[in-house]
Amino acid sequence: MIIIPKHVKNLSPYKAGKPIEELAREKGLKKIVKLASNENPLGPSPKAIEAIANHINSLHRYSSPKTLRLVNTIAEKYNKLPEEIIAASGSDSLIQYIVSTFSVEGDEVLSSEGTFIGWYVSIDKYDRKSINVPLNNYHIDLNGILERITGKTRIIYLANPNNPTGTMFTKSEFENFMSRVPKEVLVILDEAYTIYAEDIPGYPNGLLYNMENLIVLRTLSKAYGLAGLRAGFAVGPAYLIQELYKMRLPFEPNSLAQEAAIASFNDDVFLKETIRMNKLSLNMMKDKFDEIGIRYIPTSANFYLLLFPDEEFAVRFNEECLNRGLILRHVKNFMIPNGIRINSGTKEETEFALKIIEEVYFILLDN
Amino acid sequence: MIIIPKHVKNLSPYKAGKPIEELAREKGLKKIVKLASNENPLGPSPKAIEAIANHINSLHRYSSPKTLRLVNTIAEKYNKLPEEIIAASGSDSLIQYIVSTFSVEGDEVLSSEGTFIGWYVSIDKYDRKSINVPLNNYHIDLNGILERITGKTRIIYLANPNNPTGTMFTKSEFENFMSRVPKEVLVILDEAYTIYAEDIPGYPNGLLYNMENLIVLRTLSKAYGLAGLRAGFAVGPAYLIQELYKMRLPFEPNSLAQEAAIASFNDDVFLKETIRMNKLSLNMMKDKFDEIGIRYIPTSANFYLLLFPDEEFAVRFNEECLNRGLILRHVKNFMIPNGIRINSGTKEETEFALKIIEEVYFILLDN
Repeated sequence: MIIIPKHVKNLSPYKAGKPIEELAREKGLKKIVKLASNENPLGPSPKAIEAIANHINSLHRYSSPKTLRLVNTIAEKYNKLPEEIIAASGSDSLIQYIVSTFSVEGDEVLSSEGTFIGWYVSIDKYDRKSINVPLNNYHIDLNGILERITGKTRIIYLANPNNPTGTMFTKSEFENFMSRVPKEVLVILDEAYTIYAEDIPGYPNGLLYNMENLIVLRTLSKAYGLAGLRAGFAVGPAYLIQELYKMRLPFEPNSLAQEAAIASFNDDVFLKETIRMNKLSLNMMKDKFDEIGIRYIPTSANFYLLLFPDEEFAVRFNEECLNRGLILRHVKNFMIPNGIRINSGTKEETEFALKIIEEVYFILLDN
Repeated sequence: MIIIPKHVKNLSPYKAGKPIEELAREKGLKKIVKLASNENPLGPSPKAIEAIANHINSLHRYSSPKTLRLVNTIAEKYNKLPEEIIAASGSDSLIQYIVSTFSVEGDEVLSSEGTFIGWYVSIDKYDRKSINVPLNNYHIDLNGILERITGKTRIIYLANPNNPTGTMFTKSEFENFMSRVPKEVLVILDEAYTIYAEDIPGYPNGLLYNMENLIVLRTLSKAYGLAGLRAGFAVGPAYLIQELYKMRLPFEPNSLAQEAAIASFNDDVFLKETIRMNKLSLNMMKDKFDEIGIRYIPTSANFYLLLFPDEEFAVRFNEECLNRGLILRHVKNFMIPNGIRINSGTKEETEFALKIIEEVYFILLDN
């Protein structure tokens, strides 16, 4: 019998948003709309699909281990040096490498309650001592985090806009924060939703900074519509990024993800339509939530966090929506037990979702 | 300035076989043949290509985190329970999860010199104490490994057939070995090349065993021709496999890899042609090596290990082949500094390669 280390034994498996096929199988539903995983309802860019089709015959070849073409594309797009960039299988993958590269067992890491579940999961896998500062009115409490830094703190994780709250901190708040973080503490700035926030006044674009203790994460899974393929990248000082290359798996991201990512970066038309559709859907939601009185947090991303009186209400709300073919995300595991997250959809998906939400909300209020 | 842990600082980045585009760029060569990474020269199965085309429009969806359809397909094919199976982004990925799940920093792990580089790389990343027993006439020395087991040994890694030597151990050798390994020591049996060895008398199929301390690895990167997509799976007792689920990234393998793998398992025609082509190419190689007097190790896989008088000869041989458009693999980092690995190709690739090899070999002998 193999002995399992205690920190592994204590882990719970990651619970993702329910896939459409699974719900269809379970409930025998004909029409299902999934607004649970902050995916792009428009699908992938047509240019990404074309790039995949063009490379489908060379799947038997290992992808370029240096991911040269992808890295050069990113470097050019964001005016960075290639050695300041590393691509991998999504932000989850990058977070794991950063944690395992820049800290060791027992080190202290710092973040917020009510932030990305992928952070909490990674920290537990690697048996780090994790401190999470409570949210301040559903915003990440940067001052609260500063106060908890000790000589043992190695990494701070921040998401901006934050998932699942959709809130953001401003350029001046971020710069003030960074000026007070010791240079020996690495800050991970996860900008998975940055494309939805870029035109908001005061939003800080992490890629405009060059700091010795800052690594910025970007993903192709959200606005770029490539969640299934797994691709993301990290940008930071070369002396840190080059260490991550040693820890990354040799052939990440997979070859089709590399080609799809390169093609997607060249499709501004698709991104603009993505942003337009997101605003349209979020506005429809906001109007309905205001009308029926559901509490939500103003958002800078492609989703809303809905807040219910308590965990039990949120669980029942989620289940009743599922029964009617609407997949949302209960964010208990993000440390917000009374929260349900809903992402923007197409116009038709949004209408379908809002009809169900209204129906379920009033049924639950009446009970 | 962020402090880098010493074991990370000491790592060297993984060096993979040189990609075709890279060599073409460097040398301005028109025709290039790559027989360096044990890829399937026939490409992916046509059924895999079809499956990818059918799922290309849903790339914006995260893949099923439970990989249910893929796991059920594998379970049915190999007569296992779904809970005894986990799929991930290739064997490299699975090795990392096994090491990080079933051992902790400072634990002892045991393997052989002259085996898969992915093992050595993973062990160093996770800062384990690694002992590698010398090869015995280019075979993994199972008795030598048994003698090095101590109370601190947690994991033993074996590849069968072994990469890069192509040698195998037999059913009786393996069963004798397992009967003498303490039940508290986990054995990883990496069967990346098993499809090429299955019809060799005495070859042990790891999936026929049910042992409490054995995990078998299989990959889709070799005979199945899906190296670029990243897919592999592990089979073992449920109480171990379920722990690996906690450590795996949430959306591995990517959605197209899952679909391509499912389709590939149903294409026996493609596998048969793969095996036929492999034998044809290896026989052509063997005849030529015998004719010109290059030393090689008899193989049970889809490649030959060529042995040269010393490291310098191997380095020069490799370089002169590269200059002529033939990419082979110098296996110094597999701890065989005088070895060059060459995998089987199509008939035409094999002819091209053997012409260059003969030319280069005699040039170097004359110098």
